[in-house]
Amino acid sequence: MTKGVDNIERMVDILSSLPTIGKKTARRLTYYILKQNTEYANKFSSAILELVENVHLCEVCYNFTESQICKICDSEKRDKSKICVVEDPSDVSYIDNTNEFNGLYHVLHGVINPLNNINSEDLKIRELINRLQGVDEVILALNPNIESDITAQYLANLIKPLDIKVTKLASGLPLGTSIEFSDNATISRALEGRVLIR
Amino acid sequence: MTKGVDNIERMVDILSSLPTIGKKTARRLTYYILKQNTEYANKFSSAILELVENVHLCEVCYNFTESQICKICDSEKRDKSKICVVEDPSDVSYIDNTNEFNGLYHVLHGVINPLNNINSEDLKIRELINRLQGVDEVILALNPNIESDITAQYLANLIKPLDIKVTKLASGLPLGTSIEFSDNATISRALEGRVLIR
Repeated sequence: MTKGVDNIERMVDILSSLPTIGKKTARRLTYYILKQNTEYANKFSSAILELVENVHLCEVCYNFTESQICKICDSEKRDKSKICVVEDPSDVSYIDNTNEFNGLYHVLHGVINPLNNINSEDLKIRELINRLQGVDEVILALNPNIESDITAQYLANLIKPLDIKVTKLASGLPLGTSIEFSDNATISRALEGRVLIR
Repeated sequence: MTKGVDNIERMVDILSSLPTIGKKTARRLTYYILKQNTEYANKFSSAILELVENVHLCEVCYNFTESQICKICDSEKRDKSKICVVEDPSDVSYIDNTNEFNGLYHVLHGVINPLNNINSEDLKIRELINRLQGVDEVILALNPNIESDITAQYLANLIKPLDIKVTKLASGLPLGTSIEFSDNATISRALEGRVLIR
């Protein structure tokens, strides 16, 4: 019956098209927006338009940026001899927020996945190879799963002949968990990658 | 560093202002929106504007509607002798979707909560009393908590002298759970409201 309010249903449909948002949450968010003032709605609406209008890919690293070249690639302070390769733009912010890495990034925009028809040409791999001059280490910060492992191996095979060190993120027990609650594969990886205590 | 992309941060801020959406989810949703086409962004943006512009309160029941009087209040098929009183507009759709109730609704827009400075005059209570002519039952479908119980009692005290039956939703064990996983208060209520098996 309340299904009759078309504008509400349309908003619920759009919000529930977002990942992790189900119909029930979408309805709750819609009612929340309805309770706000027009100014809030205007701000929300124009934020979406301006997001899609102003944000595009950096010409060097393919991360999202508002300028031609992103702030990280453009910075004088970053170590240009190291490139950290990630799957998605969002990974850049997660890694950069750790302040552990001061080099540059390169966003692949996915991993090789033949089952989903994603081949190496669909990713920013050629673009990565073309920017390796003066680079002495490529860190493959891909997610710990099979497709990403295959992609990492593919990249390593391409890059190692150029006499550049290729590394990947350590894989093992996450901090704050216990062995009891870790899955077999994680424990195997942790054992495999065991580190000598000096 | 990626904090530098102002439009992304603005979108993250607005999305995380929504209930149940944290910063991390908001960032994920923002990246999702960025990956869609401009048409999607336009649709999203105008849905918000039109939602706030076209949806307002029904003059009779104070539920959200696009017309002067909502479809439920305007329907010939609804039983006008029963009014189901709810706290929020969203409750109307949850109750109506059960198809258990064919009467009319009345939305209070909150409950009495002196600690938060919400008094009876802040709610649509006078409006409820003014529409009780010809009504023989008022069902108080408020949430099971102390503020709502107080509000229910307050309403019952106002309505009963008008010779109208006042009922409330049954309180007890939800379907599909077990006693083991129910909290004390729920079990107490279920015992208190025990029903004779005939």
